[in-house]
Amino acid sequence: MPKQIILNAFETNAPGFTPPGQWTNPRDRAVNYLDIEHWADLARLLERGKFDGVFIADVLGNLDIYGGNADAAIRSGGWTPCNDPMMLVPVMAAVTKHLGFGITGNLSYEQPYMFARRISTLDHLTKGRLGWNIVTGYLDSAAKACGLPAQLPHAERYEAAEEYMSIMYQLWEASWEDGAVIRDRERKIYALPEKVHKISHAGRYYKLEAIHRSEPSIQRTPVLYQAGSSGEGRAFAARHCECIFVSGQSKSGARAITEDLRRLAAEAGRNPGDLKVVVDGLTVLGETSAEVQEKLAEHSRYLLPEGSLAMISAATGNDLAKHGLDTPLSFVKNESNNSTAEGLTKRNEGVVWTPRKIAEHLHSGRGAIFAGTPAQVADEMEDWIDSTGVDGFNLSRGISFATFDDVVNMLVPELQRRGRYKLDYAKGSLRQKLMGHGGPRLPKDHPAQGYRR
Amino acid sequence: MPKQIILNAFETNAPGFTPPGQWTNPRDRAVNYLDIEHWADLARLLERGKFDGVFIADVLGNLDIYGGNADAAIRSGGWTPCNDPMMLVPVMAAVTKHLGFGITGNLSYEQPYMFARRISTLDHLTKGRLGWNIVTGYLDSAAKACGLPAQLPHAERYEAAEEYMSIMYQLWEASWEDGAVIRDRERKIYALPEKVHKISHAGRYYKLEAIHRSEPSIQRTPVLYQAGSSGEGRAFAARHCECIFVSGQSKSGARAITEDLRRLAAEAGRNPGDLKVVVDGLTVLGETSAEVQEKLAEHSRYLLPEGSLAMISAATGNDLAKHGLDTPLSFVKNESNNSTAEGLTKRNEGVVWTPRKIAEHLHSGRGAIFAGTPAQVADEMEDWIDSTGVDGFNLSRGISFATFDDVVNMLVPELQRRGRYKLDYAKGSLRQKLMGHGGPRLPKDHPAQGYRR
Repeated sequence: MPKQIILNAFETNAPGFTPPGQWTNPRDRAVNYLDIEHWADLARLLERGKFDGVFIADVLGNLDIYGGNADAAIRSGGWTPCNDPMMLVPVMAAVTKHLGFGITGNLSYEQPYMFARRISTLDHLTKGRLGWNIVTGYLDSAAKACGLPAQLPHAERYEAAEEYMSIMYQLWEASWEDGAVIRDRERKIYALPEKVHKISHAGRYYKLEAIHRSEPSIQRTPVLYQAGSSGEGRAFAARHCECIFVSGQSKSGARAITEDLRRLAAEAGRNPGDLKVVVDGLTVLGETSAEVQEKLAEHSRYLLPEGSLAMISAATGNDLAKHGLDTPLSFVKNESNNSTAEGLTKRNEGVVWTPRKIAEHLHSGRGAIFAGTPAQVADEMEDWIDSTGVDGFNLSRGISFATFDDVVNMLVPELQRRGRYKLDYAKGSLRQKLMGHGGPRLPKDHPAQGYRR
Repeated sequence: MPKQIILNAFETNAPGFTPPGQWTNPRDRAVNYLDIEHWADLARLLERGKFDGVFIADVLGNLDIYGGNADAAIRSGGWTPCNDPMMLVPVMAAVTKHLGFGITGNLSYEQPYMFARRISTLDHLTKGRLGWNIVTGYLDSAAKACGLPAQLPHAERYEAAEEYMSIMYQLWEASWEDGAVIRDRERKIYALPEKVHKISHAGRYYKLEAIHRSEPSIQRTPVLYQAGSSGEGRAFAARHCECIFVSGQSKSGARAITEDLRRLAAEAGRNPGDLKVVVDGLTVLGETSAEVQEKLAEHSRYLLPEGSLAMISAATGNDLAKHGLDTPLSFVKNESNNSTAEGLTKRNEGVVWTPRKIAEHLHSGRGAIFAGTPAQVADEMEDWIDSTGVDGFNLSRGISFATFDDVVNMLVPELQRRGRYKLDYAKGSLRQKLMGHGGPRLPKDHPAQGYRR
């Protein structure tokens, strides 16, 4: 059987996302983001298309790098406002049985004890369909919003992240042993105290003494996602993560990252195949070339360059308002954990970047554009999978829900005909569905194992 | 028209609650608390009975006062484990149109910026049906779980709470002006930057500099609940809160509290009628006396004294394991914001308390027992309403869902026949439904007004 393709839907709890400005298209539905039914409908659509999961991106703080304030983000709806991602999971889980949910949680600001419980609660309510996209943030405004003078330096953020993970593993994996919960009505015993343990941690960044407030969920630790591509980010991902999201890369770039990640994972003693690499992309599908061109033009028509510039300035820490729209830029690779800047430079070597070109580039969300007939797009995706070693695609919502409608109705059947995409969901938790082997919990070669009793 | 009675359902995201031990009853459904359908079914039932709201209690930390550890709580399932309350709201909102949701949020540990966004997200998703039960916690174990050496002293917790509220009002009421969000597709403007403001706060306990990440929800500030009955708690409630939950009081005690709260509210310049007072209670309904007696005996049969002792020791800060089960206690009124201890002493003056008697007392959840035929219970409730000035009842889940089934099928029709209970929901937000006048937002005489632009 040829390698199966993972499809993820890339969403956020906001009216404006990538590609920026699409909410201005009258047939874009993203402005309905405040309605429960919007998300229930989306979940039903994605499960009909047997999407592996929906990835709910998030960013805290004001997008205030561009021009030194958040005006451009506010005006264009460039990821502003943005509501909490977790609250969407129960809504979408209620109307689906298999769809996975990757929620973004920023460990720099989420209180570990309470965050662990929120995650466990969601893993319970979804019956083991939860993933956590681990981020450390990239905006000083987020730190200030949370009462700190500034964020920690990049390398230190990853030190703190290591410590945070060790706390999470203790709460999720070690506080309640297997067999602790017996729910014995006859003996009137809910759980056995001798199998429930208080976790004690006193580290450099965090301190905690607690029994996890939730009993063990199906996966205990959710599927761990990450999207960082800096050196520290990659090392962190290779140690901890199971699904890595890669942005804005050329095929050769994606192949290099994938090989590097799997090499690092093997060095850390993990099965390199348990690292699924998923590439960001935007699909523009039509039955004919003319239809595809029309849809590409439609995307461009509603693109808001100001939104792009606000988002990319925030993500890279470079204020693009300081330059004329057509000024050539010696683009500075930013030390954030966001890979947009790196992707821009790597995928497009030789391009002379200007703020205008960058804004237009974000046309594609932040990844590859898969524009063509279903057969053309399937060809291109197959080539990506076979030539780079990546496992699938994180597809931008594009025009909400038109883009995903097209994927479900046009692309999925084509991939299925080619034996490249599941005809039905596999059984089990999100982890089992993604890995295709093993149990619902983290495998024995994962560092979480060291924290188990 | 006689005064209408408010009915709230008192729930928690845990298998064991008050009355402790009911999960051991084979017909109790609370052990299904991990299933989405459990909560959807509950919400449908409550809306069929036109309940005003469901109040989701919560406590952070280990219930480790009794015997100096959490063993009794773990063994008996005494509010242990306990999952996150917020995640239930989207599930229940998806299947209802009118039911209100009061979630408990502990301001001592919830990061203000992110908590404000979670609340706004839920107020959006519920279309203005959210309430926040403001608590400051009563367990040192919660503080330790959140990295602190101990909780703040009681009076200081309320000082911090005042500061927290001022931040919340700024984020909810002042960051985004009315008319800021225009969603203008033609002009490609989502919101007007000149009407969106950065909030700056630097106080004794909190610091923050941020634009609220959510656009304004229907109520902006959710309906504010509180359950504290200490001096500080009462003063805080009179200043800020709209719905006050009172536990374990005699009628004369409830009348005194209600009068005191309304007097304090008037002194603070608020309309005293905008403080709704709701009394905790457990209903045991039967068509005949024999049926009522049978159900009372059923409650007793499944009561777990160990669970009661764990919960009341935690709530009062008194380790009841230090005394023999039948040792008379000079009960010490605890300085926590939990009113159980005060209620015990006030409602039962002259009783010689022993740990056993306290455990049995919690039979009733933590409030009054309304046991009888629908007519008898309706009589008693009418007398409460008319003789004390309280506005309604916060009804214990008792035997899940049997107790609420009985309320919906037996008591509600009786109250409706008497003109004491709505035949249909009023229009508008939770605030409008509860107050019976005004708009969806906090009225002009509320301290939040001072933070508006």
